[in-house]
Amino acid sequence: MLNKPDALDRMFQALADPSRRNMVERLSRGPASVSELARPLAMSLPAVVQHLQVLEASGLVRTEKIGRVRTCRLEPASLDAAEHWITERRTAWERRLDRLGDYLAQATEAPEHHDERTEP
Amino acid sequence: MLNKPDALDRMFQALADPSRRNMVERLSRGPASVSELARPLAMSLPAVVQHLQVLEASGLVRTEKIGRVRTCRLEPASLDAAEHWITERRTAWERRLDRLGDYLAQATEAPEHHDERTEP
Repeated sequence: MLNKPDALDRMFQALADPSRRNMVERLSRGPASVSELARPLAMSLPAVVQHLQVLEASGLVRTEKIGRVRTCRLEPASLDAAEHWITERRTAWERRLDRLGDYLAQATEAPEHHDERTEP
Repeated sequence: MLNKPDALDRMFQALADPSRRNMVERLSRGPASVSELARPLAMSLPAVVQHLQVLEASGLVRTEKIGRVRTCRLEPASLDAAEHWITERRTAWERRLDRLGDYLAQATEAPEHHDERTEP
């Protein structure tokens, strides 16, 4: 499990580049052609196409060529896995803080027991 | 803006590796020593330390050496930026679908007037 590159590896790798995030941002507002995606980026069209290939391989973006125009679309469901992974980590951390809070509250409520403290 | 590696680059890059995600998962349940982090991973301690350095550089993890033991902690607030970025993209997409839905509903309700609308 730890050695094979999986969907999350490809997803986070795809998002680790500002040009690719720019392309995803643009596509989250609706489909676009490759040249529309390239417009705000200071790079050659072949470089844009390379980034697009990384986004396609990650499942974030789907492209379709109709006539002479390649149209790119976001696959928003693919973002769910990354969002879910991050949210789970945050939730685990918050649960831990809650348990710590409960423990401290108990320790404060029952000061007569073995770890007695004087309240300020 | 598009060329300098920023916090999100480093964050997503840090999360793009299954061993580093394993370490973050472990730390989301509480602080751990380097050898505790290494235990479930089939790799040398120097390799673990290298991954840890990537996690520290991304701001995800903080480490502190007390005596002979280096203790690692998650910085959960650092995950917020990545979570926020993903949620924003999903929200933009959903807003787009809502607008599309409204448009289609209007087109169905009032097929005789091409852009007239009835207020709800």
